Amino acid sequence: MTARDPARPLVVASNRGPVSFSVEGEELVPHRGAGGLAAAMSGALRAVGGVWVAAAMGDGDRAAARRAGGRFRAEEGDPFELRYLDLDPDLFDGYYNGIANRTLWFCHHRLWNVPYEPRWDEGTARAWGAYVEANRTFAGALAEEGGRLSAPAYLIQDYHLSLLPALLRERIPGAPVLHFSHSPFAGPDDLSILPEDLWRGVLTGMLGADVVGFHTPTWADRFLACCAELLEAKVDRRRRRIEWRGRRVHARVYPLGIDGPALRAEARRPSVRTRRRGLDRELGDQAVVLRADRLELSKNVVRGFQAFGELLRHHPEWRRRVTFLACLYPSRQDVPEYRDYARACHAAARAVNEEFGEPGWEPVRLSVEDDVERVLAAYARYDVLFVNPVVDGMNLVAKEGPALNRRDGVLVLSRSAGAFEELGGDAVPVNPFDVGGMAGALHAALSMSPEERARRARALRRRIGAGTPARWIARQLRDLEAATASRPG
Amino acid sequence: MTARDPARPLVVASNRGPVSFSVEGEELVPHRGAGGLAAAMSGALRAVGGVWVAAAMGDGDRAAARRAGGRFRAEEGDPFELRYLDLDPDLFDGYYNGIANRTLWFCHHRLWNVPYEPRWDEGTARAWGAYVEANRTFAGALAEEGGRLSAPAYLIQDYHLSLLPALLRERIPGAPVLHFSHSPFAGPDDLSILPEDLWRGVLTGMLGADVVGFHTPTWADRFLACCAELLEAKVDRRRRRIEWRGRRVHARVYPLGIDGPALRAEARRPSVRTRRRGLDRELGDQAVVLRADRLELSKNVVRGFQAFGELLRHHPEWRRRVTFLACLYPSRQDVPEYRDYARACHAAARAVNEEFGEPGWEPVRLSVEDDVERVLAAYARYDVLFVNPVVDGMNLVAKEGPALNRRDGVLVLSRSAGAFEELGGDAVPVNPFDVGGMAGALHAALSMSPEERARRARALRRRIGAGTPARWIARQLRDLEAATASRPG
Repeated sequence: MTARDPARPLVVASNRGPVSFSVEGEELVPHRGAGGLAAAMSGALRAVGGVWVAAAMGDGDRAAARRAGGRFRAEEGDPFELRYLDLDPDLFDGYYNGIANRTLWFCHHRLWNVPYEPRWDEGTARAWGAYVEANRTFAGALAEEGGRLSAPAYLIQDYHLSLLPALLRERIPGAPVLHFSHSPFAGPDDLSILPEDLWRGVLTGMLGADVVGFHTPTWADRFLACCAELLEAKVDRRRRRIEWRGRRVHARVYPLGIDGPALRAEARRPSVRTRRRGLDRELGDQAVVLRADRLELSKNVVRGFQAFGELLRHHPEWRRRVTFLACLYPSRQDVPEYRDYARACHAAARAVNEEFGEPGWEPVRLSVEDDVERVLAAYARYDVLFVNPVVDGMNLVAKEGPALNRRDGVLVLSRSAGAFEELGGDAVPVNPFDVGGMAGALHAALSMSPEERARRARALRRRIGAGTPARWIARQLRDLEAATASRPG
Repeated sequence: MTARDPARPLVVASNRGPVSFSVEGEELVPHRGAGGLAAAMSGALRAVGGVWVAAAMGDGDRAAARRAGGRFRAEEGDPFELRYLDLDPDLFDGYYNGIANRTLWFCHHRLWNVPYEPRWDEGTARAWGAYVEANRTFAGALAEEGGRLSAPAYLIQDYHLSLLPALLRERIPGAPVLHFSHSPFAGPDDLSILPEDLWRGVLTGMLGADVVGFHTPTWADRFLACCAELLEAKVDRRRRRIEWRGRRVHARVYPLGIDGPALRAEARRPSVRTRRRGLDRELGDQAVVLRADRLELSKNVVRGFQAFGELLRHHPEWRRRVTFLACLYPSRQDVPEYRDYARACHAAARAVNEEFGEPGWEPVRLSVEDDVERVLAAYARYDVLFVNPVVDGMNLVAKEGPALNRRDGVLVLSRSAGAFEELGGDAVPVNPFDVGGMAGALHAALSMSPEERARRARALRRRIGAGTPARWIARQLRDLEAATASRPG
């Protein structure tokens, strides 16, 4: 054991950085991401100093990276530096689209139509080569940035960078490294659909970390099962430890929470207030079922609309009295599966409106746009928040909604969302494949007594208030320190 | 412990009986199934006496059941009786098509396109009601038939009858009951896609047995994982035992084998010999890659053709020298997913033939017909047997082929087939999703030295010869006797 000040500087690595840049004339204009994660990481970096390494995601990012000649600050006076890696566009395409989004995302979320997809071929091998190379580029940058700091800790984010822990460990054997998976983790049956060099790469890559973090016990246990069954590593499932090449790796659970005060401050902005009044006018005294999601294959939008149709069919008392407000952010529309899914979502919404709509009442109001203010406004207004993914690493909508809602709205929550493990007790649970069951759950939620709604809303707010992103990071750093301190030798 | 003669009479239950009847004029003509299972069960029944209970599958079966007024013998002098249950056609449809084939089969084989399918609705609930009712009808018939025998053992087959063990146990608490799953078994993530009453019904239904049998350790362990994670039953995974409602249930592995002598006798029939000569003329000195499968979503026919196309693309030395003989049995063409898949198989074969075919050389010869003799003839002739399912409970083609082949043919075998756990060591292994990898495996198999081919073929024959269906049943009955004898109280 070595006693040391735990406030190591940080090297954070993620695919997407906390700030993106757009080119406007001669200017590079920074845009900060809305997510609680970026804010929390930035907060931690601010406290102890360090650098955030990410891939340049567009021309603005590339220009910012080039202009600075390496690391830079997003804005004058920022307390930490950014380093954006200007990856060759072909390399980026293979790494990001080919492997991260089209292969690993599909695998961890089990989104394949297995009789037909996936099909590994030479394109897969090329994309995997790009993924390896991109992770190597990150490793080089991390080692370089880390070398400028005094004994930093490395926090590596998500499935884009699953090889990075081991690649970094090759360069800096003693580095304290934590990898966190923001997505679910595939079990052995699903992970072994990948070609062997991919599943082996992902597992042994992550095992380069001292600590591998997950949102829920379920995802952590699946990772352990993969290590035991596919790698035949020595795994202590009860203690969630893996012995791997003479090192000990700890699997740990860190459910990400939201920053309530910051979110409420956002929601109090005049522009959001204006949107809220607009929504109030638009919706009148309608009961509101809300969903807010990326337009994503795993979010189960189609069955959600079908369930709403079933509700109107079997409980005609709700006709003209309830509106389904669906706020979807466009996503990955260059991927054919996502384009098909977007069409299916529109068609499912239209089918409900054609069957049940009447003059003056449109049952489903579907918008597909990047409109955070509309979502923040809608959070206040819903009676039922409908979160029904077929699988989801965590799902922060299930936490943001109850934090901002003003009507004791009821949370209808899929058992397959990571958030269910924390919030399920105060939600109305659904099997996301059960269209009839989801219709029944919507009815139950809409019909719930005011007392019961208030009780559950209170319980949800209490639970959600307990876990902030700052604590989420603090727990990781504490565990990482302990894991490093207890290393043999 | 009670000492008793282990030769209990048997009550066998399966969805499909060992004999089917066609109506020809006034006559009911019996047709015996070709499978080794039916022969083995019939052999066991012959030895100790008993009855085989099955569902009437068509008008001939129904007529046979009605004509006999209950139990009957397939032919004069048969040593055991049949009882075919004349289920109401709507009930049969819900039980067989709705739940067994379209729900449980898809679930255990993970065949769903999860973003869209399955969708549980009222139709599911109705079909499930029919499934429960059909299993109840079986339970009543089994109890009745068992009551006429002296302390019989009950052997219940497959996912059609997963509720039957518990329903029978209610009627005859002390009955020795074994349930065998001929399909894979879904892990907890896949099984819990089902509505709760379905997954709970399947698990608690099977737990009515004393012994639950599976083809491989993998399927047995998935069943145990479902009991532990979904039912929260007390499970000893190492000993493969479940404590359930005061009883002990044993999960056991019985890989089904083939009856080599009977199969060889079949293959010596003059009609098969004629077909063999026909194939020899048709194929000349072509190297032959053979596949023989039900035209089934899980068999991976499309990727198989694509892999063959890749072989011809990257190893042009095989053009004009190799023929892919694909013998497919038509299957479930009333189910839309199967019709779509049949079209995709034809299209994939056509694509290869259009790209590479030449006058006098058709690279892929695809036949879709119920032609067992062609398959028996082709088994003798292949150089490579290509068995590449995305998942398969066992796959007996991988055993029948090597038993009959006369050219030291090489087995290319999917790691996801149950048979892989026995035969993988002497096969060329493939990841069934890896089209490029399968092309490489075909090339490796076709290029293998004669010595290596002979060595592997010998090893396969030896291994396959060791496990016969008669021993498969004998082991089950021995374990069932031991489990019954060691019951507490």
